[in-house]
Amino acid sequence: MSFFRCQHFLSFSILLMAIFVVRTTQADEGMWLFNQLPKRQLSEQHSFGVDSQWAERLMLAAVRFNSGGSASFVSANGLVLTNHHVAADTLYKLSTPENNYHEDGFLAKDFSQEIPAPDLELNQLVAIQDVTDKVNSALTAGMSPQEAAKARQAIMASIEKDSLDKSGLRSDVVTLFGGGKYHLYLYKKYTDVRLVWAPESGAAFFGGDADNFEYPRYCLDVTLFRVYENGTPAKISNHLRTEPQGATDGDLIFVAGNPGRTRRIYTADALAYQRDVAMPRMMNLLRRKENLLLQYSLGGDEEARRAKDDLFGIQNSRKAYSGMLGGLQDPSFIASKRELEATLEKKVVDNPKLESLGDAWKSIHEVQQRKAALIGKSGTLKSRLYSIAETIVLMIAEDAKASADRLRQFRDSNRESLEQELYSPAPMYPDLERTLLADELARLMEDRGGDDPLVQSILAGKSPRSRAAEVVAGTKLFDVATRKEIAAGNGEALSKSDEPAIKMALAFEAEHRRIESEMDEIEELERQAYAKINQAQFAISGDSVYPDATFTLRIAYGIAKGYESDGVVLPWSTTMGDAFEHEVRHHSQSPWILPKSWHDAKSSLNLPTPLNFVCTADIIGGNSGSPVVNKEGKLVGVIFDGNIDSLTADFYYTDKTARAIAVHISGVLEALSKIYKADHLVDEMTAK
Amino acid sequence: MSFFRCQHFLSFSILLMAIFVVRTTQADEGMWLFNQLPKRQLSEQHSFGVDSQWAERLMLAAVRFNSGGSASFVSANGLVLTNHHVAADTLYKLSTPENNYHEDGFLAKDFSQEIPAPDLELNQLVAIQDVTDKVNSALTAGMSPQEAAKARQAIMASIEKDSLDKSGLRSDVVTLFGGGKYHLYLYKKYTDVRLVWAPESGAAFFGGDADNFEYPRYCLDVTLFRVYENGTPAKISNHLRTEPQGATDGDLIFVAGNPGRTRRIYTADALAYQRDVAMPRMMNLLRRKENLLLQYSLGGDEEARRAKDDLFGIQNSRKAYSGMLGGLQDPSFIASKRELEATLEKKVVDNPKLESLGDAWKSIHEVQQRKAALIGKSGTLKSRLYSIAETIVLMIAEDAKASADRLRQFRDSNRESLEQELYSPAPMYPDLERTLLADELARLMEDRGGDDPLVQSILAGKSPRSRAAEVVAGTKLFDVATRKEIAAGNGEALSKSDEPAIKMALAFEAEHRRIESEMDEIEELERQAYAKINQAQFAISGDSVYPDATFTLRIAYGIAKGYESDGVVLPWSTTMGDAFEHEVRHHSQSPWILPKSWHDAKSSLNLPTPLNFVCTADIIGGNSGSPVVNKEGKLVGVIFDGNIDSLTADFYYTDKTARAIAVHISGVLEALSKIYKADHLVDEMTAK
Repeated sequence: MSFFRCQHFLSFSILLMAIFVVRTTQADEGMWLFNQLPKRQLSEQHSFGVDSQWAERLMLAAVRFNSGGSASFVSANGLVLTNHHVAADTLYKLSTPENNYHEDGFLAKDFSQEIPAPDLELNQLVAIQDVTDKVNSALTAGMSPQEAAKARQAIMASIEKDSLDKSGLRSDVVTLFGGGKYHLYLYKKYTDVRLVWAPESGAAFFGGDADNFEYPRYCLDVTLFRVYENGTPAKISNHLRTEPQGATDGDLIFVAGNPGRTRRIYTADALAYQRDVAMPRMMNLLRRKENLLLQYSLGGDEEARRAKDDLFGIQNSRKAYSGMLGGLQDPSFIASKRELEATLEKKVVDNPKLESLGDAWKSIHEVQQRKAALIGKSGTLKSRLYSIAETIVLMIAEDAKASADRLRQFRDSNRESLEQELYSPAPMYPDLERTLLADELARLMEDRGGDDPLVQSILAGKSPRSRAAEVVAGTKLFDVATRKEIAAGNGEALSKSDEPAIKMALAFEAEHRRIESEMDEIEELERQAYAKINQAQFAISGDSVYPDATFTLRIAYGIAKGYESDGVVLPWSTTMGDAFEHEVRHHSQSPWILPKSWHDAKSSLNLPTPLNFVCTADIIGGNSGSPVVNKEGKLVGVIFDGNIDSLTADFYYTDKTARAIAVHISGVLEALSKIYKADHLVDEMTAK
Repeated sequence: MSFFRCQHFLSFSILLMAIFVVRTTQADEGMWLFNQLPKRQLSEQHSFGVDSQWAERLMLAAVRFNSGGSASFVSANGLVLTNHHVAADTLYKLSTPENNYHEDGFLAKDFSQEIPAPDLELNQLVAIQDVTDKVNSALTAGMSPQEAAKARQAIMASIEKDSLDKSGLRSDVVTLFGGGKYHLYLYKKYTDVRLVWAPESGAAFFGGDADNFEYPRYCLDVTLFRVYENGTPAKISNHLRTEPQGATDGDLIFVAGNPGRTRRIYTADALAYQRDVAMPRMMNLLRRKENLLLQYSLGGDEEARRAKDDLFGIQNSRKAYSGMLGGLQDPSFIASKRELEATLEKKVVDNPKLESLGDAWKSIHEVQQRKAALIGKSGTLKSRLYSIAETIVLMIAEDAKASADRLRQFRDSNRESLEQELYSPAPMYPDLERTLLADELARLMEDRGGDDPLVQSILAGKSPRSRAAEVVAGTKLFDVATRKEIAAGNGEALSKSDEPAIKMALAFEAEHRRIESEMDEIEELERQAYAKINQAQFAISGDSVYPDATFTLRIAYGIAKGYESDGVVLPWSTTMGDAFEHEVRHHSQSPWILPKSWHDAKSSLNLPTPLNFVCTADIIGGNSGSPVVNKEGKLVGVIFDGNIDSLTADFYYTDKTARAIAVHISGVLEALSKIYKADHLVDEMTAK
């Protein structure tokens, strides 16, 4: 479950937008900040005293996959444990028609066999600083939304730049509580990341799309990488120790990971907009792309292999969004939200001290209407080829400005990540790019109408299909050296370029900037309004709060326990033996086919070994690959999914039937040893 | 290729709406009326003199599947030959978990083994009468659009009723040339239709969705039924004689079938509306349903079997619409249409005699805007369960009126067909109905917004999923006797019913009628405007015209010949041997798996026997199953598809790379004899 695998469908600005506080918490709710731990809750609910050193060790052992997932260091020699589906993108990029590592798995017998990933960036959070006052000092009364946003961006960029220069660490200012707090996150970056071991996709994604977001599950959804520094395995002092027994029923457990986005602060109007406009459109887009890639995959085995990574991400997102939309479509949810809101609003209006906050709900309402008017007016095309051209076009113009004045992704602080993505040697397939670009051009025409002058200019008198064929046949951007060469030129050289993808991006540039600028304004208005709602809630409900998710490191906690759904009692865990039974129950038909390696090793396996388990921790997409640890801070599992009932987590937490699903560490060790004959990795992970 | 298999996505009113004349014809263009044959064209282009008796024999041998396809009588004992995919609906209904006739095929060894289809109606066109003057006489100057439409409906209903009473034949007034002509079609109906033979779906739909709308093809897409009268095989005097050699490269051939809908008269504005609004919405709906059924099918083999029929229809439609939309998205097409239109409009304006016609284009333009405002405001839910409830609710109210005043489908002339559908004993599956209804309720909420009072009333405070579960669990409409019982009641009894599906349909009834009425008005305005454009074209371009398709019997003609596409030369025909090679080329993987019966019989087969072939005849969805005959009027093939380039046929004909695809009759006979051991059927079809 990582709908960040499908990140290009979530505009990055949206990802970073919804960053707001939550009222009061219940049960095991909460994605807590490492510098604001739920000490009272853990003490009251679970009689557990959080020790700051305990938490710091966990923070340092946690790893973020910049591509959209979580992970952890699990050995002193830089071994990194994450989900197979977080690694999938890399596994596809490393695969060739001859060696399909995603499908067939991979095992390096020693360091020399470990394969460098083409464009991974891993982040280890090493420090957090509160820079709220510094950010707020840049804003003065009477600034327009645009001015305020620009001033805030400028100060944030300057803080990031100073920090980078001083520390040499990746430095991101994170907006929390809808602008109530600004924290500077300092990350050590690892960019030499090598593949160590991956199981077959038949084991990692056993049950496929049919079982996705379901429970009981039986997936070995894990993969091992290793980070290197200066050509040798990195030395990691704060890695997690493994508890070979793993989690047990009823255990208090903790999850350290990077939940991508939640929107629990949203008002009823904002939720109604999501329900009626944004999500239905997103579902249409996802079904469109899913359908397109399924059709493309019918072309043959090789086509299916090329499309599989994107296709999985899209199917995963589609299922996730359908769960979210289903939650919103329950009339009782928004109705109860509206009721709570009316109570809060009345308290605000009745309290003279809070008077200035009273217009926030109206402002959110108006913002939804502006958003609705803008939807379908995207200023970009979702294709890798186009994205490369667009990045180059924007970069050349942005580089002429001071870093603080640039669009966010072109600031100095993000430079390395940007270039790693732009100059990635990962293979691109002209036929797939043509298919995707043609569909995006058709989508553009459908969104804006065929008579729109911009559409006509971009299509240059051709049908979407012919135009895409023409651009893909003529482009030289598949070649990384050409990208670098063009990017090294100036604006004048660019404007004379006859590179067709670049010309297309140039034709779109002004509109792209216009829309980004309007979105910025809308987001700023929203930010200001939610900041007021936060203030009102602080004033009325006091503390006990955690901010909405921001794809930054959080700690969640809960209990390993089963649940009852529609009268069926579901156990806290499944075992390796259950996986074989599940296969038989489905007549060993795709996607319920365990790999040959599992069948070969079956007789040697300890079949009662736990394979997957569920817990009540508050997680969401982005948490994929998060380590699950026990009270001693020892590794007992790896989060890889949430059940269908947990998909409302974007808007609300519940522990009634919602559960996070993890791979049990005992299952990982048993499989590594008996199935994959990788005792050297077991030894490395369990070394004292 | 029958996007009428998916008829519930094409509102019936739309199906019957676009009935307009075409300007000038080119090459083998045209779907000609049997009472207005293209004698001059055939003589000039192919030196062929059409003999009226020749044409009448062909007309009488042609059969229409009321469910949305074409066919022909091929023996004196009532044998009917159509496509397997036209029969699929019936094959699914006759199948059980034990006997999957769609998948595994069926063969009756004698009459006693032939299985009655639950709800088929076959139509044989026996006479056509021009009733234009009679219809027009009912309209007087100064009538409002609503009055004109009502008056026309009333006179048409009365003509149909009189004819039915007098002849005992099904009598339909067909609106041709956008109202330029009205013809009364008299059909002999056959409702006792029995399954005789069907091949395995692996042979009929070899290559599946991947090969659909492609060429070369290798499909035995045929099935045999038999019509009965009074419990014995019907005696057919005008059946087609089979030409065992079938078609040959370069042959002049004729196709007699029921093309469903074309819109070649559409103005540029109407086409732009299709391109920018109607078709993108349709594509979203189709992808939505496809996705839904694919997810449902993941539940298991039985679920997959239940969903397969609808799923195939939807995938077929989706691919067809994507081809049509692709054609419209070529800017040069609408541009050239706009140019032609400007020329015509200028001639009209410059000609004082035609002055009154000049506002037609503006009127069409305005109508598109009204349509756009109405789109997404459907007054119904597309589910079989809901459709049954809705039919009963409307029927009870309509039955209280005189036949002529009723909604079209409730008039006496359509009574038998309506009841056959309503009381069909075909199996319904609660889990599938729940899935479909839940999705339709969600779709309704997305279309109208969750705060819409009508939506709230229909959902009754529940989520779409819960509401659908509640209705499906509580309904008794799965039982045919209950349907009859409720339908026998009056309006008062109905209003007190606590049958949940009926209550839902009652809550929707007023809105449904409001929308139908507005659609009627829009269609009337459109009809009047197109009638003017037709008049202008008649006045300026003269004759050489055929009306847009109306799912009534037409004759098309063309040449059996190959073509060149992207530099590849494609042969006029494929052979049975090629089918085996195609299977090997795709590693015998699904959907390229020929049935065991083919492999068992391979050594005895004459492999060079033609299996499929292409021709330039002008066809479209609804033509599926149409007989292809030679100059002697003998059966040489059966239409089953068009290639992807032919999908523009809705809007324009081209013979450059567009082709109709047929099963070659020699392949049918060879397979019947050698693979299916059905020499008795070969003998029946080839009897002198």
